Amino acid sequence: MDKKITHAILEAVDRRFDEQTQFIAEVTAHATTRGREQGAQKLMDEQFRARGYETDIWEIDVDAISGLPGFSPVLGNYDEALNVVATHNGGGQGGKSLILNGHIDVVPEGPLDMWHRPPYEPYIDDGWMYGRGAGDMKAGLVANLYALDALRDAGFQPAADVYLQSVVEEECTGNGALACLQRGYRADAALIPEPFDEKLVTSQVGIIWMQVYLRGTPVHAMQTSSGVNAIEAAIPLIAALRKLEENWNARPKHARFEHVEHPLNLNIGRIKGGDWPSSVPAWCCFDVRFGIYPGQDIDAASAEIENCIREAAREDKYLRNNPPEITYHGFLAEGYSLADHDKPEARQAEKSLGQAHRAVTGDDLQTMPITATTDARFFGLYADTPALVYGPTAESIHGFNERVHLDSIRRVTQTIALFVAEWCGLEKT
Amino acid sequence: MDKKITHAILEAVDRRFDEQTQFIAEVTAHATTRGREQGAQKLMDEQFRARGYETDIWEIDVDAISGLPGFSPVLGNYDEALNVVATHNGGGQGGKSLILNGHIDVVPEGPLDMWHRPPYEPYIDDGWMYGRGAGDMKAGLVANLYALDALRDAGFQPAADVYLQSVVEEECTGNGALACLQRGYRADAALIPEPFDEKLVTSQVGIIWMQVYLRGTPVHAMQTSSGVNAIEAAIPLIAALRKLEENWNARPKHARFEHVEHPLNLNIGRIKGGDWPSSVPAWCCFDVRFGIYPGQDIDAASAEIENCIREAAREDKYLRNNPPEITYHGFLAEGYSLADHDKPEARQAEKSLGQAHRAVTGDDLQTMPITATTDARFFGLYADTPALVYGPTAESIHGFNERVHLDSIRRVTQTIALFVAEWCGLEKT
Repeated sequence: MDKKITHAILEAVDRRFDEQTQFIAEVTAHATTRGREQGAQKLMDEQFRARGYETDIWEIDVDAISGLPGFSPVLGNYDEALNVVATHNGGGQGGKSLILNGHIDVVPEGPLDMWHRPPYEPYIDDGWMYGRGAGDMKAGLVANLYALDALRDAGFQPAADVYLQSVVEEECTGNGALACLQRGYRADAALIPEPFDEKLVTSQVGIIWMQVYLRGTPVHAMQTSSGVNAIEAAIPLIAALRKLEENWNARPKHARFEHVEHPLNLNIGRIKGGDWPSSVPAWCCFDVRFGIYPGQDIDAASAEIENCIREAAREDKYLRNNPPEITYHGFLAEGYSLADHDKPEARQAEKSLGQAHRAVTGDDLQTMPITATTDARFFGLYADTPALVYGPTAESIHGFNERVHLDSIRRVTQTIALFVAEWCGLEKT
Repeated sequence: MDKKITHAILEAVDRRFDEQTQFIAEVTAHATTRGREQGAQKLMDEQFRARGYETDIWEIDVDAISGLPGFSPVLGNYDEALNVVATHNGGGQGGKSLILNGHIDVVPEGPLDMWHRPPYEPYIDDGWMYGRGAGDMKAGLVANLYALDALRDAGFQPAADVYLQSVVEEECTGNGALACLQRGYRADAALIPEPFDEKLVTSQVGIIWMQVYLRGTPVHAMQTSSGVNAIEAAIPLIAALRKLEENWNARPKHARFEHVEHPLNLNIGRIKGGDWPSSVPAWCCFDVRFGIYPGQDIDAASAEIENCIREAAREDKYLRNNPPEITYHGFLAEGYSLADHDKPEARQAEKSLGQAHRAVTGDDLQTMPITATTDARFFGLYADTPALVYGPTAESIHGFNERVHLDSIRRVTQTIALFVAEWCGLEKT
């Protein structure tokens, strides 16, 4: 690409970066945990429309997606679960179309006293913006928007169709991204600026969520020995799951994860049991999150996890006759490897992104596999669309004092802008 | 007592027993878990007033009781925490005064699907009334009222003052009964018809509640090894507490509990931790309930439990530097032994109750120590008032399908009526 144009685009990002930073803070100030995304989605829609994009805002229809591959089971309902897609119609000068995707939902913030400052009052300190969701992934979501703004400020627009997607449900099912597929959005590539340190993600694991529900025999605490404590009944099951995790990680690794020390992580992320200190608890419920390799069959993996739980239960004389109930209440997500995506566009997209990254940073684009999932799997697996995951440097995502690095956001925005220019082509406005 | 009068009183209980049963069901239909006692207390007040008793209904004032011996710390507020006391003024013909006490609060009902029928829709089947609180202790609370009704139906009233108390907070602190003391209610004896199988309770343990709060290091589940899971951090602490329970029960037993196999029970009654399946949990909180012997010092016992938790924490390299927080949020209850209450009235009250029981059942009154607490400790320890605990047969209190035996309620009501007649003396109305 013409050096003058490149320079103009990079400068355009710089010029608007204060405004971009403020807008990231505005979006981060919305506490968009599951079920509370509506306000922020309407803000995104407003901003899309203010720039002249056609927008499509809709509530996810579970019935319409539940039969599609990649669907994850849903607990609760989808009232208020709005997706927004803005469309830029390119001039059709032969460039390739693109989906710029990001998710609006964030994970719960946890106990407030573990945050230095309130999680939804974003602030900047020493070059970092702090706040729940600032990194994962409101900075990336906003970078998509401002990358296109920079092209326009430089006097251009993408020559091909570009879809700006702001989706819900990335953190628990991916059903937001799936609903975009169901609604017909397709392109030659997708890019998701998830906060992975300005590296291109080559491969992501799959994720299984399940909930284990145990019943005990509740009695008054004065007769604990005649009751069965459902909380303590969970302990050997958790131990068995940790053993299974060890076994899985001791097996030969997936090629893309060969250099990852512990690719398949188990997490016991939530527990709840009992109602009253002086009643032997009648129930206990805990959440399991397990990683699996790309290509690993979800049903087989789930069955193995279930077997592990059931076998541990059979060793207990009470649970043997009162087996745990296992429910699926979120991710049944397959893994995805861009690096193994067998399509010329995948290599072209990697190459274009690499060039853009080098133009901005002067360095080669580094790559890495991740032990998490992203919405990339929907584009990659179910629409044969190479999906690039590449975003800014962030820390403590899902933890406390989550933060994202401002200079990194600026560089990522510039890289996205150059990538769009290269991938879609440019036309003068 | 005159056989004809005895007979008339017993018959009076029988005659009103259908009405009494209906009223137990009406009170049981109120879901009087902590904070929701108001409606039922107003119903009790109404019923007391309908019978011509003076009533006193008031909201517990924490500041007024927090300096008194026997006070237990309170989490949350006491809005809606109403006590009701009805007073019968005796003619002063030399009889002894009496407190008839019962509690209106019930423990949470747990998952509804573990009940055969809804917990607050009481029903009768095969001679039992089912419902949360029917046994513990609405049947007893109502028995107090109907025992006095029977005297009146037979043409009498107690010759001394009788206080009918319906209190809150028995299930977590005892601060309802304490507030009655603070308000000045005193008598020569107290009787509480807690559901202990028509046996007289000779001794009750003390109870300590504490809450243990652990912090972890929350990270995204993709990096579980760099985080510390607060839920799993709780497991060795629970194991250490079970060891302590073993040690305590291996020590020489309190004389009144010599024949009780396992007098001091630990219960882990509630646990909660984490917010999200894919975040390593930042926190976990569990509730400990421990029994102690009468005469055992609460501070020393609490310190021993705390030490046990802290020592277990020190063995973990993370918890060593992030020690658990321990909070007291309920019972700091001393044990009480009526059988060791060194006052002539204690022996007299036992004897009178024994006679009444024999007149109704034909059997000697059996006695037993219990591994639970009741409000008896307030009367016994802090007002030097012998406190009898004697009530109907119930099953599954604090469990599911809680039930109380109707014939047993009838007998207990008759016994209470005869006991009042004997203890307070009778005068014609």
